[in-house]
Amino acid sequence: MAQSRQLHLGAFMRPVSLHTGAWRYPGSYPDANFNFTHIKSFAQKLERAKFDAFFMADHLAVLNMPVEALRRSHTVTSFEPFTLLSALAAVTERIGLVATASTTFDEPYHIARRFASLDHISNGRAGWNIVTTSNPDAALNFGLEDHVEHGERYRLAREFYDVVTGLWDSFADDAFLRDVESGIFFDPAKMHVLDHKGDGLKVRGPLNIARPPQGWPVIVQAGQSEPGRQLAAETAEVVFCSPRDLAGGKALYADIKQRMAPAGRDRNHLKILPAAFVVVGDSVEEARAKRARLDSLVHYDSAIASLSIALGHDASGFDPDGPLPAIPETNASKTGRAQVLKLAEEEKLTVRQLAQRYGGYSGLAFVGTAQTIADEMEEWLSGEGSDGFNVVFPYLPQGLDDVTERLVPELQRRGLFRTDYEGSTLRDHLGLPRPENRFFP
Amino acid sequence: MAQSRQLHLGAFMRPVSLHTGAWRYPGSYPDANFNFTHIKSFAQKLERAKFDAFFMADHLAVLNMPVEALRRSHTVTSFEPFTLLSALAAVTERIGLVATASTTFDEPYHIARRFASLDHISNGRAGWNIVTTSNPDAALNFGLEDHVEHGERYRLAREFYDVVTGLWDSFADDAFLRDVESGIFFDPAKMHVLDHKGDGLKVRGPLNIARPPQGWPVIVQAGQSEPGRQLAAETAEVVFCSPRDLAGGKALYADIKQRMAPAGRDRNHLKILPAAFVVVGDSVEEARAKRARLDSLVHYDSAIASLSIALGHDASGFDPDGPLPAIPETNASKTGRAQVLKLAEEEKLTVRQLAQRYGGYSGLAFVGTAQTIADEMEEWLSGEGSDGFNVVFPYLPQGLDDVTERLVPELQRRGLFRTDYEGSTLRDHLGLPRPENRFFP
Repeated sequence: MAQSRQLHLGAFMRPVSLHTGAWRYPGSYPDANFNFTHIKSFAQKLERAKFDAFFMADHLAVLNMPVEALRRSHTVTSFEPFTLLSALAAVTERIGLVATASTTFDEPYHIARRFASLDHISNGRAGWNIVTTSNPDAALNFGLEDHVEHGERYRLAREFYDVVTGLWDSFADDAFLRDVESGIFFDPAKMHVLDHKGDGLKVRGPLNIARPPQGWPVIVQAGQSEPGRQLAAETAEVVFCSPRDLAGGKALYADIKQRMAPAGRDRNHLKILPAAFVVVGDSVEEARAKRARLDSLVHYDSAIASLSIALGHDASGFDPDGPLPAIPETNASKTGRAQVLKLAEEEKLTVRQLAQRYGGYSGLAFVGTAQTIADEMEEWLSGEGSDGFNVVFPYLPQGLDDVTERLVPELQRRGLFRTDYEGSTLRDHLGLPRPENRFFP
Repeated sequence: MAQSRQLHLGAFMRPVSLHTGAWRYPGSYPDANFNFTHIKSFAQKLERAKFDAFFMADHLAVLNMPVEALRRSHTVTSFEPFTLLSALAAVTERIGLVATASTTFDEPYHIARRFASLDHISNGRAGWNIVTTSNPDAALNFGLEDHVEHGERYRLAREFYDVVTGLWDSFADDAFLRDVESGIFFDPAKMHVLDHKGDGLKVRGPLNIARPPQGWPVIVQAGQSEPGRQLAAETAEVVFCSPRDLAGGKALYADIKQRMAPAGRDRNHLKILPAAFVVVGDSVEEARAKRARLDSLVHYDSAIASLSIALGHDASGFDPDGPLPAIPETNASKTGRAQVLKLAEEEKLTVRQLAQRYGGYSGLAFVGTAQTIADEMEEWLSGEGSDGFNVVFPYLPQGLDDVTERLVPELQRRGLFRTDYEGSTLRDHLGLPRPENRFFP
């Protein structure tokens, strides 16, 4: 039974798992994150399961972490987004390809051109995850001593977005005639010179590539801060976010959607897709046991540091195999602390298990059978907690196969997810309109 | 009979033909330059013919030309190099993939990372054509009012090269252990922080990607100026150049190679590959007729402007269908003028035909049968005019098929070109050593 409103599913694929122990799980590919043959097979499986998109986060530096955590990190070597997604474009046909690119450390002409090129190569499957890059280590790789301040980064991001979308509109959709007889290749009257001169950017244009098949690649954003939410309401078509639970999801969903009408936008033209860590088992107990086994592969020293941060209290002296002891209240994040205490209580976790949960993956998780997870996802969808999810896999390939071969069929049976693609572009999959060309309406 | 020294063949593929009339030739694909399906088939044909590399020039702006020429240009919309070559990497297995990237308008961290990623995705087939970007229109697309001056661009290019190659050496080749048992993914003692602080660039590092399979992607350069030749002798492994004839080729070859020993380099570790426009026919007459037909597709107004520039004299008043009239000597380039007069004399061309030659493609050309062209190429190789060629196709697909199906077999019969790849990387094809890691020798 088809429903009017269905889930949209993205796959969070850089790294291929956010769980720090993923590469050590029995049966996993230890190099899954940096092996093109594996990643190609993941993308093809996701396409067969009719996922909306393959989503690639990005970092512009080796992440700054203590050496004990660093040397255990399977993310330290990764493919660069444009090269990886372009390669995947050539070996897939329908799945969307979302790349992260920074408005702080790259040039709008390059960004506009690369996404336009990816959109042409993939026949309309590109998406741009706009980030302002908050990592101060990235600045040091681009000649800057001081990181650009948060508000300034968002002001520049908005101008950058205006320039990139303006460059995408450099040519009318029907500018290219290719009339062999007359020798006229294109009509210069259908080419617009942007000539942008703003506070932060000066870019002349035109772009040296035809307008993307989608008009513009899909605009994705991840910020949850006040300026991030406002920028999303004004410009984003997909929001990637990390609410901890359904209540948090509903609040964020309502807040972003209610900002859209004042910005002159239709609330259906933005899809909110939280990250969700999904572990599928034959029974809820089995799924939990898989997760516990995965968590147990997280190194204790780095795990306990993560728990200490979450608690706002040094946990390194606690008995690893005992329950969480009573600890004095501090000024550290009360929400984070309350969540640790709730989790310890609910799942009866030892200090070690708690630490390994925080050192592994501590965001929103659906751990159960295909049925219980479909129930939860349906509740999020019908309760306006989200329009779908960006699925985080626990380990690969098995954790991905469990989703595509077990969870997806259950969602399809319930009419909650497509059984085939209806269109060919990422905009088609997401139900988003093709933007008009501002210069050639 | 295998010879000790063989030709290296690159395919000049952006645009897929440099001839301005190519898209109008009977049987050609008018959109060959901007159709991924076609370009994929070209790359696969070149690979079956055992070409060393697919070479992609680049521009960072729509080229500034009079509107009559502009609207007839099949190059105004093109794919971006990293996206196109990465897509091609996924659908080919052996052919090298050379992308052009600018040291003036991009960041060394991005460049190092993208080429490393392309090298990993392609299993060691990437090459970097280093350009300093002389087009002043490009500057306007990157926020600069004034173009960066020539000497300054070359000084920066050298520093940029040092930084990029230093970033490629961020990790020892054996840094990644992926020891599932112990949980150690890599050895931080085998990671080097570059911490470059030079006159023009400050880049900390390390790069967030493992050392490329080739150590470094192959370094290609195209400059023929004095600083360009010196930079090439010091750093390049392939030189792309445009001598007009064998004498010019020999002089350039000798000059660049003799600069290498003083720079501490082995002269065999640099391959000089001039651009060569190749038209193959059943007879020399048929090949010339094909070229004449192709030239006739060049628009006369833009053609006569090109001839005027070559002559240093306004040719627009000449009788198009008469011979080139006697013209007074001026201060314009004497070499260029002498070449026009020689060509007019030798091939008995009318003003229109001369103009269309200059408006079409006027560089080094081999026009004849597979046998006569193989003779010429052999003369260049044995006479140290070059180590091979970057082949420019007159039109596609037929002009490319004529090379891969007729010329290449003739070269193979003579032992002048490989009948199969002997190795798997671009360095293997070119006979270049894998660079040592400067930080982990």
